[in-house]
Amino acid sequence: MPKVDQKMPRIDETPTPALVLDLDILESNIAAMTAWAKQHGIGLRPHAKTHKCATISQRQLEAGALGLCCTKVGEAEALAAAGIARIAITAPVLTPARIRRLMDLNRQIELTAVVDEMGNADDLAAAAEAAGKPLKVLIDVDVGTHRTGVTSAATAVTLAALIDGRQGLELGGLQGYAGHVQHVQDYRIRKIRTERDLQVLAEARDALRQAGFEVAVISGGGTGSHRIDAGMGLLTEVQVGSYVFCDVDYDVVDLTGDGSRPYRNSLFVDLTVISANHPGFATVDGGYKNFATDGPVPEVTTGAPAGTSYRFFGDHFGRLEFADTYHQANSGERVRCIVSHCDPTINLYDSYTCVRGDEVVEHWPIEGRGRGD
Amino acid sequence: MPKVDQKMPRIDETPTPALVLDLDILESNIAAMTAWAKQHGIGLRPHAKTHKCATISQRQLEAGALGLCCTKVGEAEALAAAGIARIAITAPVLTPARIRRLMDLNRQIELTAVVDEMGNADDLAAAAEAAGKPLKVLIDVDVGTHRTGVTSAATAVTLAALIDGRQGLELGGLQGYAGHVQHVQDYRIRKIRTERDLQVLAEARDALRQAGFEVAVISGGGTGSHRIDAGMGLLTEVQVGSYVFCDVDYDVVDLTGDGSRPYRNSLFVDLTVISANHPGFATVDGGYKNFATDGPVPEVTTGAPAGTSYRFFGDHFGRLEFADTYHQANSGERVRCIVSHCDPTINLYDSYTCVRGDEVVEHWPIEGRGRGD
Repeated sequence: MPKVDQKMPRIDETPTPALVLDLDILESNIAAMTAWAKQHGIGLRPHAKTHKCATISQRQLEAGALGLCCTKVGEAEALAAAGIARIAITAPVLTPARIRRLMDLNRQIELTAVVDEMGNADDLAAAAEAAGKPLKVLIDVDVGTHRTGVTSAATAVTLAALIDGRQGLELGGLQGYAGHVQHVQDYRIRKIRTERDLQVLAEARDALRQAGFEVAVISGGGTGSHRIDAGMGLLTEVQVGSYVFCDVDYDVVDLTGDGSRPYRNSLFVDLTVISANHPGFATVDGGYKNFATDGPVPEVTTGAPAGTSYRFFGDHFGRLEFADTYHQANSGERVRCIVSHCDPTINLYDSYTCVRGDEVVEHWPIEGRGRGD
Repeated sequence: MPKVDQKMPRIDETPTPALVLDLDILESNIAAMTAWAKQHGIGLRPHAKTHKCATISQRQLEAGALGLCCTKVGEAEALAAAGIARIAITAPVLTPARIRRLMDLNRQIELTAVVDEMGNADDLAAAAEAAGKPLKVLIDVDVGTHRTGVTSAATAVTLAALIDGRQGLELGGLQGYAGHVQHVQDYRIRKIRTERDLQVLAEARDALRQAGFEVAVISGGGTGSHRIDAGMGLLTEVQVGSYVFCDVDYDVVDLTGDGSRPYRNSLFVDLTVISANHPGFATVDGGYKNFATDGPVPEVTTGAPAGTSYRFFGDHFGRLEFADTYHQANSGERVRCIVSHCDPTINLYDSYTCVRGDEVVEHWPIEGRGRGD
């Protein structure tokens, strides 16, 4: 009697809206970034704010990442609880309660934090001294985003001296994240701006070394600028996030400057037509609560005629608009969309529905979802 | 020895970003809507898509609501599991798997569904016949939003005949939701449009009655139009949602036409300044992952000088912009914002941090969060 394979569920039998992750493409994206980093001698410190997922973090570590990044303590707590042991928190951590949680994390895992002002450095030092384990910190440098970071090399040196003088803190190096250049579409313009804006980071490094401080780590960059960052020879590691998925936002950014596309769309939202009483358009079951709305609209990729576009149609609804104004959909039909901005879209779901082809092979929890605390 | 009161935590000791619900104002909003509905002889069927919370649903039921509304089966499952026993699902339910779940719900609670086409009515009838308990349905009528609903009174009659002929279905009446008029700011213009667009619903009612069908329920309307709906004498119940919280979106809508404001802002997001190295602006710890971005920006209400505005500043960050360009904030300071669009903002959080004044008195789970399935 032949062995009967256990039937895997097909993706079109699962409920919508579903956050669908194509594992073949995910693996190809991770492999491409890893190979590139090895070839160019730069460290990978992928940012988990994008995927918020311990399973993907683990895959990135297994491929050779130095560790992960998280933006918030809550996000780091969620990943640490799921077994991720090397995390850098990339935004300043303030307030007594949050600093206590940071110390708890520091006891459990290999942790790095950032500081951008004296008062906070002092608080962190006192807490780490009391906790009995030094905290490794990077000095955050404002490279032009004006979100966080010290604004001059001189302040970086003053801060380094404070850190150096406290038992609770250990100076790891510098961070400079140029968020404002990541989505500049033209490679050449992005390169000019990145090289100009990272100068303050180079100055901070030089000033610190001149003052006798070691600068082992210089962390920054992202998917948009990683090739430019590596070419500059300044960063020791890049905080790439979106490359694992890509999205409608990044699809218009020339990431390589040579027209090649090593990273492809691996992440989708599947929807169902729930009303189709009009020619020319139909209503699907996903809206503001199922996609990020801060960027471009989702892009319809399969399940509808070529030229179909998606429009938001309320909290729970989208509208498919057909190129042929006489085309009438059938209710119950499924469509697949490339996600708009990947990070805040993922933050709306509890798990990834992982597929290979049309088969659902796994569900991966999104441990960091909603952990902005 | 005097009895020592248990100290309640103060809101400023809790982690941010926090979704803060002022219970005194919530209760006042619920009381105002209940009193108004009683006075005008119209039923209340509050929409839980706004709050997604069993505790608030329970308060609305205790105040006299006929039942709750949900948009999706998943949302209804979450509230039913938390004890809410009277729910109308306001969007069509399609696909075999979802219809099976609808039948499970129908076995457990007093449920109403909507239909807007023959094929779906047929599927629902067959499933309910097989399940052995009839499903109560309203015929959904498109009153101009063009999202769901039959497009003519004649189709409503055909659909009523199909429903009437099937043992599995029970005709409850009609639904017509005018989503497109709810946010029209001027009361007079909103009134003209509502009265014009609801005519098709009146025609469907008349045609159904003429054909011998009973129309016990006519459900529709929302916070924006409820006073106009009641004045028309057509709807038997209004699906008001946002009145419990209000938001920046609704604050510019004249809800009453007489300048009175019976519903006030009860819902806020509290944030912390995490970097303040520049005069004129500062960075807070809430961005695209903490507020809906489909509408206006959040409004700063307390914790910052008058005239301070909020701008989005990335996934996890916001930027406070001070009217005085020399003002410099202190890191660690807390600000409170009125939420932008309430429904998709709430969908980002797991619970409400409920306060009376500055004291945290409870945490209410948001059972329906993420349940778009």
